[in-house]
Amino acid sequence: MPARVVGFDGDDTLWHSETRFSVTQAEFRELLRRHVPDADADTRLSEMEMKNLAIYGYGVKSFTLSMLETAIELTGARIPAGDLDVILGWGKRMLMEPTELIDGVEETLRALSGRYDLLLITKGDLFDQESKLARSGLGDLFSGVEILSEKNMDTYRGVFQRRAIRPEDFVMVGNSLRSDVVPVMSLGGRTVHIPYEVTWHHEQVPDEELPKEGWWRISSIRELPTLLGKL
Amino acid sequence: MPARVVGFDGDDTLWHSETRFSVTQAEFRELLRRHVPDADADTRLSEMEMKNLAIYGYGVKSFTLSMLETAIELTGARIPAGDLDVILGWGKRMLMEPTELIDGVEETLRALSGRYDLLLITKGDLFDQESKLARSGLGDLFSGVEILSEKNMDTYRGVFQRRAIRPEDFVMVGNSLRSDVVPVMSLGGRTVHIPYEVTWHHEQVPDEELPKEGWWRISSIRELPTLLGKL
Repeated sequence: MPARVVGFDGDDTLWHSETRFSVTQAEFRELLRRHVPDADADTRLSEMEMKNLAIYGYGVKSFTLSMLETAIELTGARIPAGDLDVILGWGKRMLMEPTELIDGVEETLRALSGRYDLLLITKGDLFDQESKLARSGLGDLFSGVEILSEKNMDTYRGVFQRRAIRPEDFVMVGNSLRSDVVPVMSLGGRTVHIPYEVTWHHEQVPDEELPKEGWWRISSIRELPTLLGKL
Repeated sequence: MPARVVGFDGDDTLWHSETRFSVTQAEFRELLRRHVPDADADTRLSEMEMKNLAIYGYGVKSFTLSMLETAIELTGARIPAGDLDVILGWGKRMLMEPTELIDGVEETLRALSGRYDLLLITKGDLFDQESKLARSGLGDLFSGVEILSEKNMDTYRGVFQRRAIRPEDFVMVGNSLRSDVVPVMSLGGRTVHIPYEVTWHHEQVPDEELPKEGWWRISSIRELPTLLGKL
């Protein structure tokens, strides 16, 4: 059955995101090395993010707060406030950076927008995601925007209900097996996986755990119109 | 014309919020007094929040980041990291506190829920607001939840469109003239103002700037069923 509605993830599907977290995390590692040369800042930050996820949710503000807490903890509160101010500045920089579209995104969305209803379905911080969308210049191409605090069967089911979408008419496109592929497949929708150059460990799922059918993997969004045409 | 859909603001309309910010801000003032006795921490924090609003948006995480930045700035970066860790802890405490309902809310919403479609329309941090709603126990009484990054004519118009609501069928109930009353009146809806004990200066509007008709002020949500019955 041909798709009628195509949902797109935002971060690392339409625009670069994880690479920016990686860049900041490398700066964080260097900053902490000056104070505690033997500490494993990456592991500790990652643990802190997971511990704080239930309190803060996703997004740059949460990441910034977790960096600050990790820096204070790893240095036994000996880090100077000036260095913590530098970390605050990294958070602001990430929130203000121009939205950098992934190669092929704009042309592909323009080509698809006449043929399908396009939805942006992202997770994370509401304000940050709206701001990124506004700066992306893609806003007019979407018939709707859904910013979810988490992407799972319940929240996708909510989107389907609010927008009267039948799962069999829907294709979700994203870089995360955990957030974009698995829950939509479980609801009877089809999915297209476009891996990004970096995957946050939290989003990883082994291929063996995925259904055998009903999802496709392409290496660039440029392949999407042809694939959708065949469904 | 009788109302069909009643929208409710969350913070300071259904549950206490601003009083909690006030409590934390008093602790912040005391903490800074130990380092910079002459500084006007309240004014500086308030300026910092306004400056950061366009980058961070609303919510507890934004407030926490602004407290940290203010503390570093006011002390010339001489504040010990341990004190900044205390501020981080205040933010977490605010995010984890039980949702404390305002007097009369639960009974009133239960009484209204059979007669009207009830919508929760709040602004702020998506994750925090969803979490507060979940902890409030009120979730089942609402036919829909809209968490907006800002409440203005554009975002209310979006709610009306998404949910096929005619402004003349809609009544908005909230504590903020700026966010709950003015934009809804401008779109042709009716509004009920229930002042809260504390109003954030950012939300204040002089009564003279409001329309003469189409809005009502009550002192407790308990008066709402009778008022709605008369409309």
